[in-house]
Parts: sequence; C-alpha cells; structure tokens
Amino acid sequence: MSATRRRHLRPTKAEDAYLKAYLSGYADGEGCFCVSFSRSTRHRFGWEIRPSFSVSQNDDRSQVLELYRSTLGCGSIRPDRSDRTLKYETRSVSDLATRVVPLFEQHPLRSSKQKDFEHFAEVVRLMHDAKHLQPEGFARIVRLSLDINSSGTKRFPRRAIVLPQMNA
Amino acid sequence: MSATRRRHLRPTKAEDAYLKAYLSGYADGEGCFCVSFSRSTRHRFGWEIRPSFSVSQNDDRSQVLELYRSTLGCGSIRPDRSDRTLKYETRSVSDLATRVVPLFEQHPLRSSKQKDFEHFAEVVRLMHDAKHLQPEGFARIVRLSLDINSSGTKRFPRRAIVLPQMNA
Repeated sequence: MSATRRRHLRPTKAEDAYLKAYLSGYADGEGCFCVSFSRSTRHRFGWEIRPSFSVSQNDDRSQVLELYRSTLGCGSIRPDRSDRTLKYETRSVSDLATRVVPLFEQHPLRSSKQKDFEHFAEVVRLMHDAKHLQPEGFARIVRLSLDINSSGTKRFPRRAIVLPQMNA
Repeated sequence: MSATRRRHLRPTKAEDAYLKAYLSGYADGEGCFCVSFSRSTRHRFGWEIRPSFSVSQNDDRSQVLELYRSTLGCGSIRPDRSDRTLKYETRSVSDLATRVVPLFEQHPLRSSKQKDFEHFAEVVRLMHDAKHLQPEGFARIVRLSLDINSSGTKRFPRRAIVLPQMNA
C-alpha cells in the first residue's frame, strides 16, 4: 500500500481498535472462512485449493463491506450471483496470510466459529509457505478443511479428493 | 446487579472496550431493533407497544448470546420457536433505556441499520419517560416505528393503527 493511501486510511489508534473489534464481531455472525477445491490439471495432485474470507450483506447496507476493504487494505466487493447481496471477498493467499489472518488472531471470534478460523489460518499459512506442493502439506490441508464447519466448505467435494501418497 | 455479580463480570478496561465494539459489530449483522404493536384493551389508545432488542444464533454457537447477556447485564436467552435457533432478547423498557441503548450510542453501528437504531432509541426513551401515555408521544412512537426498516417491524400492523386525536 502506498504511503499516501496509508495516510488517507489511517484512523486514530482508538478508532482503529474499535473498528477491528467491530469487524471481528460482524464476521462472527456474517463472515465465512472457506476452503474450496476444484479439479485442475494445472495444479499439483490434480486439485486447486482456494481459501477465501468473505462477508455478504444486502446491497442497501453495504457500508460494512467497505469497512472491511479499507481496514484490511485488500479484497474486492461484487454482487453475489447466488442472491441479491453484495459480497466482500479476499482470495489472495498473500493478503489472507498477511492481513486477514492477523486481524482475527489479534481480535478473536467469540463463538465456536473461532475453531473454523484456526483451521483456516493453518491452511493459509501452509499455502503461504508453499507446503501445499508437498504431499504432507496437501494432506494436512485436506484434513483441516474437512474439519471446518460445513457452512465454510460448501463447495468441498469431501469424498472426491484422493490424498497423495505420503512417499509420492 | 449486585456488587458481587459486578465484580465477577468485570473485565479489564481494554477487554470491556473490545467486547462492546465486538457486540456492536455482531449486532450490525445479526441484531434486531424491533417495535411491535399488539391490540390490548388494557393499554392506552388500545395498543400495547413492545420495543425489543434481539439477536439470534444457531444453538451450536450460542456463546455470543451469552456475551450479550453478561456484558449488558440484562435479557434472556431462549429457543426461537420460529426456527432452530436460540434468541437473546431484552424487552424491559428500563433495561433497554439504561443498558442496551447506551451500549449502541457509545459503540455505533456502521451500516444503515444505525438509522433504525436511532429511531428505536427515541421510542425507548419516550416510553421510559411515559410519553407513550400522551397522544403526542404515542403518535410520535408510531411514526418512528414506521420508519424502522421492515426487518425490525415484522409484527407491525402498519395500517391497523389509528393515531389518537392530538387533542384527545
């Protein structure tokens, strides 16, 4: 992020703390820590792994989605084709690892969704460290993703993934 | 609340600030500021006015509802008959006026739901000051309630209420 943009976005310390706690609370209700898998011949082990953090909201009250974008400094907002909502989403592994995961580590969720987040955070870190390209890392990611609440893994073809041989 | 209970519940100042900002964010997504009207021969002008603040959650992640109850020091949690969720709710006008409204005034919502809250807060204050027993106060409450987003006034029989004559 440029210095100009940082200055423009920089709230006071108290406001920043307030906003981050607020966004953590909002995400506990409305946020989704998701890991999806798609068949792909271009990716190792035949699967593309896509972690994402998203929050949806009716388009007449999308101000909070803008707050996620400005506070996290990443992600995009677009119409969700599945219904008449807007969705804030970050898919970049680098942004997830350096911006999204740290926000929720410093401002933890207070419901059992925190457990989902912890699994998600480990998936993101493994991918950020390129561990998903190794059999052990890939297998660990699949197991972690299976443990994430079904709401976060809607597109997860649980039975379709064949784990790579550990000595492959 | 007793001094013993207050001591038991008292978090550090930073934790208290975090929790309140968090609960404000959660409520922006999942909370409902509602004013409902029921026909009643026991109430002035033939209507009972019931403001309430509520938050629903699946029962497997109801920890946040407990946080509302402990942080606000009021309200109750019970199964919502309409679906398989638990609902935290405060209906007491006194608790709404002295606990719920101040929380959200000090920790404002960041979406357009804030406008609903402001109308709700005025309804609660008018009732707390017994202004709903006067024609002007009653009429003002009806008008404010009509302005609250439809999600907050599901049980509001908009066309059924006949405003009292201002000189009644």
